[in-house]
Amino acid sequence: MSNIRKLDNVINNNYNDNKLNTVLNEVLQDIIDYKDGQELNGFSKKLINELFGQLKKRNFIPPVIDIIQVGSTARNTHLKNDYDIDIFVRFEKGTDKELLKNIVLECGKTVIQKLGGKCWVEYAEHPYLSAKVDKYDIDIVPCYKLEWGDKIISAVDRTPLHNEFLINKLKTKYNIELIQDIKLLKKFLKGIGVYGSDLKTKGFSGYLCELLIIYYGGFINLLKESQYWKLGQKIILPDIYKLYNLKDDYEFIDIPNQPLIVYDPTDINRNVAAALGNENFCKFLYYSNLFLKNPSKDYFYDYDAKVAKNINNRDMGELLTLVINRPKNIVEDVIYPQMEKLQNSINVILKEHDFKYIRYGNYADENYCYLSWEFTVYMLPNVHVKVGPPVYYGNRAYQFAEKYDKCFIDGCNVCAFVERKYKTVYELFEDITSNKLNNKIATPKYVVPENAKILNIFKEKYEN
Amino acid sequence: MSNIRKLDNVINNNYNDNKLNTVLNEVLQDIIDYKDGQELNGFSKKLINELFGQLKKRNFIPPVIDIIQVGSTARNTHLKNDYDIDIFVRFEKGTDKELLKNIVLECGKTVIQKLGGKCWVEYAEHPYLSAKVDKYDIDIVPCYKLEWGDKIISAVDRTPLHNEFLINKLKTKYNIELIQDIKLLKKFLKGIGVYGSDLKTKGFSGYLCELLIIYYGGFINLLKESQYWKLGQKIILPDIYKLYNLKDDYEFIDIPNQPLIVYDPTDINRNVAAALGNENFCKFLYYSNLFLKNPSKDYFYDYDAKVAKNINNRDMGELLTLVINRPKNIVEDVIYPQMEKLQNSINVILKEHDFKYIRYGNYADENYCYLSWEFTVYMLPNVHVKVGPPVYYGNRAYQFAEKYDKCFIDGCNVCAFVERKYKTVYELFEDITSNKLNNKIATPKYVVPENAKILNIFKEKYEN
Repeated sequence: MSNIRKLDNVINNNYNDNKLNTVLNEVLQDIIDYKDGQELNGFSKKLINELFGQLKKRNFIPPVIDIIQVGSTARNTHLKNDYDIDIFVRFEKGTDKELLKNIVLECGKTVIQKLGGKCWVEYAEHPYLSAKVDKYDIDIVPCYKLEWGDKIISAVDRTPLHNEFLINKLKTKYNIELIQDIKLLKKFLKGIGVYGSDLKTKGFSGYLCELLIIYYGGFINLLKESQYWKLGQKIILPDIYKLYNLKDDYEFIDIPNQPLIVYDPTDINRNVAAALGNENFCKFLYYSNLFLKNPSKDYFYDYDAKVAKNINNRDMGELLTLVINRPKNIVEDVIYPQMEKLQNSINVILKEHDFKYIRYGNYADENYCYLSWEFTVYMLPNVHVKVGPPVYYGNRAYQFAEKYDKCFIDGCNVCAFVERKYKTVYELFEDITSNKLNNKIATPKYVVPENAKILNIFKEKYEN
Repeated sequence: MSNIRKLDNVINNNYNDNKLNTVLNEVLQDIIDYKDGQELNGFSKKLINELFGQLKKRNFIPPVIDIIQVGSTARNTHLKNDYDIDIFVRFEKGTDKELLKNIVLECGKTVIQKLGGKCWVEYAEHPYLSAKVDKYDIDIVPCYKLEWGDKIISAVDRTPLHNEFLINKLKTKYNIELIQDIKLLKKFLKGIGVYGSDLKTKGFSGYLCELLIIYYGGFINLLKESQYWKLGQKIILPDIYKLYNLKDDYEFIDIPNQPLIVYDPTDINRNVAAALGNENFCKFLYYSNLFLKNPSKDYFYDYDAKVAKNINNRDMGELLTLVINRPKNIVEDVIYPQMEKLQNSINVILKEHDFKYIRYGNYADENYCYLSWEFTVYMLPNVHVKVGPPVYYGNRAYQFAEKYDKCFIDGCNVCAFVERKYKTVYELFEDITSNKLNNKIATPKYVVPENAKILNIFKEKYEN
């Protein structure tokens, strides 16, 4: 386990390792299902064989070089009840893109129908085939076969290399332990609500989990080591030095403003943890610390929801929710960043008008986007102090004094008492939903606050 | 007028000098009374003669060297209806302090009684005689006769030197204009509420006014030049270089954290403007600018009160006043700094508890001290976010989480929802007046909030 850094500045290492192991063994019982895994492997092999037969029959080998299974199920690092099967059909470099697409969609469709399933075309950077056969969720993806160090043509070309790298690393004598620890990490991250690199979750991807366990040699070691992490933590797998013939850290490009930087062995300019948000990085450190100190199965099972339930069992501030129609067929990865953008720009306006919230959040279901706030200051008297320039900028202070009637000096600035534009937060939201502030707030394409419904409690209490 | 700096970076110098002169001439009619001035001079001479006769009769000359009139009435730089007469009795250096005091108190008393007035002993650094004869307010002060550059023994020893310096400067061909402009400046500063170096006003002293007019050569020039002042403005009279045989600015001590530094010709380590507060410095720049742009007599007559009346003719926030008993015989110069100290420390507590005010102020009459606030945020819901340490300080975050039940991660910090200690500002003030916060707020000797009365409007509206 040469990957493990030395703990030279120990904070508190008196963890109860027996207790930890007991808890982890209990969790493992819940997340591993050998029978299920064997069934899945059998089905995948059958699928690949059928697909290979179909391609051969139609004389597409070459340009198809091989068909491989990738993803966590290919490496047995998936959690129980995960039936995702990712099949990559690899073509010779230089194959026409249209041809590559058509071959996979056509042959894939034939095979899926033969197996009694349903399929449809999905779009990422390029189209691919998605299918459902029994309980299995299948993706059949065309890509080019690249060698190590080749420049990627499409983002999917990287995936087989990820797979190759991980398969090699997991084929060591620690095989079973590493794979179990990857599953434990995924379950832990899921429990504390930070598993998934989608733009809604902004957490840890499956690939990132596998690299972290490989680098730190195990789940508990990772948790212990993470207690020394700081924002901007860099992780460089020793393999990368060998693969790219590099000598020291200086040869890696700087990736700023990200809490965790894990250089991708298949592309050292890419951060595997790019999707991870600061807050989720910190959540991981925090719950790792709590778990190490007081080991409990709880952290692995909807812990985030339990925390939310507990912290919200209390007296509340004034709650307000903006309910916005969600357009059809717009995916989460588009909707969530747009909700966040809109909410952040509303937050700026709220601050400008002296309203205060202690919490805000957003959520989308099939039909609506919900932007919510919990306010502590939601009503204000009809007076506002407009702060003007310092008096020693001669003309600027004079111009301010000409513009406002009720001027006075506060500290070194000329200020004025003016009427308050919004005396309740409700008035401000009414201007937002009637489009009167649209030059001041971000207006994302699919999350449009015009005509949104304002849900709030205090309106009836205080209006008129 | 070699004192005047060149205006090399002119902001806007298109002032209407005719209009300015018209206004100033009108004001001058109100503030100069030649007849009154002659009467006062006659009375002062009589007083000095009587005092000299008395001292001679009792064989106190020497140690008394001379008797001089000082202060603005001695230089005719006082405003109309100012009947202050300051008489200094100067003794040989080395005279016993007790003797010096007794001589002045005794002989002064005899003279005042002879003139039909009343007198009493006042105390500054040392005792002196204060008296009222007809409309005249008289101080008779003992001091040592110092030469230029002598180390002062008591603060009053400086005053005759101030007088000597000013008398010499005002005995130029600009005599009348300079004296008129000193009066205009005093009247202007009085009008805008910044005349007086007492600790309540924190404004410009009379001596400072005279030095500024001498330095800038006149009232309008001072106002124009002040438009280039910045916080920390230094003013060094050319005479000082001669008097102290200095060559450049580097030889002057640095006096930090003061808005205006005017080196005293009688003591170059002393700032004549030491009492001037930042806000009043800025008020002066601001109203000078307004006056130069739109000359009007208004600025010279209770302008500050008119501004206050205008800016407070509006919708108000929630007003709260703490009414504190004022002990007898404690002078303004003690009470005002103590009120300020108490109010500032209450302001810190208010901020800690998320209350917001847009204005605060204090005032004392004979019986009470009044500390007032105008609040915009004076009620809050029963929830407060306690912000804990960042999660990457391992044990500190853990300790926080052990202490509070409803913890969550916000950004990089562990936070907790807790109950709010004070849900209205009234509850907080009740704890102040019942002494429950006395280890958290300043408790000045003479302005004691215990058992103070809380005057506020919203109490009855919202209690229970």
